[in-house]
Amino acid sequence: FSLNLADCNAVLKALQPIFQEQGMTETVHNWEDHGYLVTYIKKNGSFANLRIHPHGLVLVDLQSYNDHMKGREEVDQLLNKVEERMKELFHGNIKRVKRLPAILRGGVIDRYWPTADGRLVEYDIDEVVYDEDSPFQNIKILHSKQFGNILILSGDVNLAESDLAYTQAIMGSGKEDYTGKEVLILGGGDGGILCEIVKLKPKMVTMVASNIDQMVIDGCKKHMRKTCGDVLDNLKGECYQVLIEDCIPVLKRYAKEGRMFDYVINDLTAVPISTSPEEDSTWEFLRLILDLSMKVLKQDGKYFTQGNCINLTDALTLYEEQLSRLYCPVEFSKETVCVPSYMELWVFYTIWKKQTDI
Amino acid sequence: FSLNLADCNAVLKALQPIFQEQGMTETVHNWEDHGYLVTYIKKNGSFANLRIHPHGLVLVDLQSYNDHMKGREEVDQLLNKVEERMKELFHGNIKRVKRLPAILRGGVIDRYWPTADGRLVEYDIDEVVYDEDSPFQNIKILHSKQFGNILILSGDVNLAESDLAYTQAIMGSGKEDYTGKEVLILGGGDGGILCEIVKLKPKMVTMVASNIDQMVIDGCKKHMRKTCGDVLDNLKGECYQVLIEDCIPVLKRYAKEGRMFDYVINDLTAVPISTSPEEDSTWEFLRLILDLSMKVLKQDGKYFTQGNCINLTDALTLYEEQLSRLYCPVEFSKETVCVPSYMELWVFYTIWKKQTDI
Repeated sequence: FSLNLADCNAVLKALQPIFQEQGMTETVHNWEDHGYLVTYIKKNGSFANLRIHPHGLVLVDLQSYNDHMKGREEVDQLLNKVEERMKELFHGNIKRVKRLPAILRGGVIDRYWPTADGRLVEYDIDEVVYDEDSPFQNIKILHSKQFGNILILSGDVNLAESDLAYTQAIMGSGKEDYTGKEVLILGGGDGGILCEIVKLKPKMVTMVASNIDQMVIDGCKKHMRKTCGDVLDNLKGECYQVLIEDCIPVLKRYAKEGRMFDYVINDLTAVPISTSPEEDSTWEFLRLILDLSMKVLKQDGKYFTQGNCINLTDALTLYEEQLSRLYCPVEFSKETVCVPSYMELWVFYTIWKKQTDI
Repeated sequence: FSLNLADCNAVLKALQPIFQEQGMTETVHNWEDHGYLVTYIKKNGSFANLRIHPHGLVLVDLQSYNDHMKGREEVDQLLNKVEERMKELFHGNIKRVKRLPAILRGGVIDRYWPTADGRLVEYDIDEVVYDEDSPFQNIKILHSKQFGNILILSGDVNLAESDLAYTQAIMGSGKEDYTGKEVLILGGGDGGILCEIVKLKPKMVTMVASNIDQMVIDGCKKHMRKTCGDVLDNLKGECYQVLIEDCIPVLKRYAKEGRMFDYVINDLTAVPISTSPEEDSTWEFLRLILDLSMKVLKQDGKYFTQGNCINLTDALTLYEEQLSRLYCPVEFSKETVCVPSYMELWVFYTIWKKQTDI
C-alpha cells in the first residue's frame, strides 16, 4: 500500500511515543519526497532507525552492544508495540509484517558464512576451535552444534564432520569397487576421502597434498577426527601414502614413468568460480591438472571431482567447456548432492576417457 | 583491539571524507563513553550509519531503496574505501573485516525464512507461486532456484520439491516393505508420502487430512507435482483414499471398529515446540493422537513421525517423555536426516509397541 505525506507523518506521530518511553532522544530527517528517517538514541549506546517510505514500507532497525537475552525480550516488546500501533493506525490493513532474527556482529564467534551463490546464512557456531593464517589462506575450524566441527578456508565452508555425503559423492556415490585398486587423491587435506577409501581395501592410495594443505592437515588431524579418523596421524600406512608436494610435478613425474591409476580424485580447494573467460589463468591451471590426470588415468579409469553450487550455472557451463578442450576426448556425468553443512546443493562430476571403437 | 576517545575521533575523521564525497550530509552523535553514531544522509533517500565503539568495533550499515546491481557496485566501492582507509589508519593491524550480503526487505519476494532453531537464512527464492490465507494458516508456495517449489505454512518451511529425503525418512528410510500392507497417513497434505507409498503396491493407504489441510492440498496438487505426482488429483485411487476429516474422530471410529494398520505415519503439521510443561494442551493433543494411533496399530506395526530440528533438544526430550506416558508401553528409535530445504538437520522417530514375552 502507499502512504501520502500526511500518512508518513501519522506513522511517525504514532510510533514516536514508543521510542520516547524508552528514554530515547529523537532526530528526524524529512526528505519530503522520500519520507522520513528517524534516529532514536539511548544513553547506553544503543539506537534505532525508523525509516518511513512514502510507498508504504516502514523499517525499524535496532542496534545495540551486548545483546543479552534480557535485551532481546526488551526488543521484542518494543517491536510488539510498534506492530500493535501500526495495526491500530491502519485498522489492521497491513499487507505484511516480518521480524528477522538479530544479526550478531563483532563477537568472538562469527556465525555468518555466506553460500557460494552469495546468500546470507547463519550457522549454529558456538566455538572457535582453530584459527590460523598460513601464507596461503586463513584456516578456521569452528564448532557447530549440529554439524560438528566445520573447516572454513578463507571464509568458504569446506567440509564439516557431518558431511560424509560430500566424501561419498566425490568417491562415486557408492557405485565403485575400490578393492585392489590404485587411487590418486589430489588435495583432500581434510583426510575424509583417504579415510573412507582405505576402509575399502585398495591396493594403494596416494594422496598428494601441497604446502598449501599442510596447515589444513595439521588442523584436521586434531579437530576433524570424525572425518579423517587416524589416517592423517602418519603420512604412510599399509595401503596409503601422503606426499606433501605440489601435484603438478608429481603428476608430470607419474606420466613420464607411465604410472597409471584406476581412480583420480581431484579434491583441490582452488576451484575457479570466475565466469569471465578473460581471467583465463585459473581455467588454464584447471585444464593442466585435468590433462595430466587423464595421462595417468587408465583407459577404463574414472576421474571424480566436485564442481560448484548448483546455482552458479555459468561457472558450471564454463567448467564443462574445459572438458571438451583436453588432449584426449572425455565424457562426463554429473550428480547433484545435498551436503549438510553447505546450505546449498552441490554438483559433482565423474569424467572418463571416451572409449574408441576397435 | 580497543580504541580510546582520540582513536574514535581519528576513525571518524578518516572515514568522513568517504561519505562526504558521496554527497551525504552528516549528523554526529557522541556518547563520550560509548563512542560515536554518525548518520550520513543522501538526497535520494538512502543513508548510512557509522557506529564507532570505543572497544574497537566499527560497524557500517548502508540502507537504500531499490537496490539495483549498480547500487551494489557503488556500495562495494564505498566499503572498499572504508576498509582501505581503516587499514591505513591502523597500519594493517585490524583483527577482522567482514562484509555481509545485503538484506532485501519489503519487496514482493521474501527470501528470509528462519530455521526452527531461530537462525537467519536466506533462500534463493525468485517467485511467489501461491500465497493464500486459510482460516487456519497462511499457505505460501515459493519457487527456489535450487529446491524447486517450497511449501511454507505460517512462515515455517514445510517441504520442497527437492525433499524426497523427508518423505523417505518418515516412511522408514527404505527399510520397510509396504507391499500388501494397510497404511494410515495422518495429515500429509502435500501428498508426498501418499505418492511414494502407492508406488510400493500397498493393499490400501488411507490418508486423513482435515479441513486445515484442504487448501494445502489445493495448492500442492497444482504447484508441488514433483512431490505429489497426480495422487491428489482424485481423492480415491486403486489402492488409496483421502478422507477430508479431522483425524481424531476417524481414529476413534477405527479403534471402535477394530480396524488395524501395519503402518501409521503421522505427518500432521502441528508439532508442539513449546518447552514449558504448563502449556500442556498441545502435548495432550499429541498424546491423544499417539494413544489412538497405537490402538489402531497392529502388534508388530510401526508408527513413523517427524520430531523436530536436532538443536531443539528440550523439545525432543519432552516429546520422548510423552512416549512413556501412553496407554501401552512403546519403544522408539530416532534418526537424524538432512532435508535439503531445511538448512538444519531434522530428527525422525520410529515408534512400536513393546513386545511382551509370551
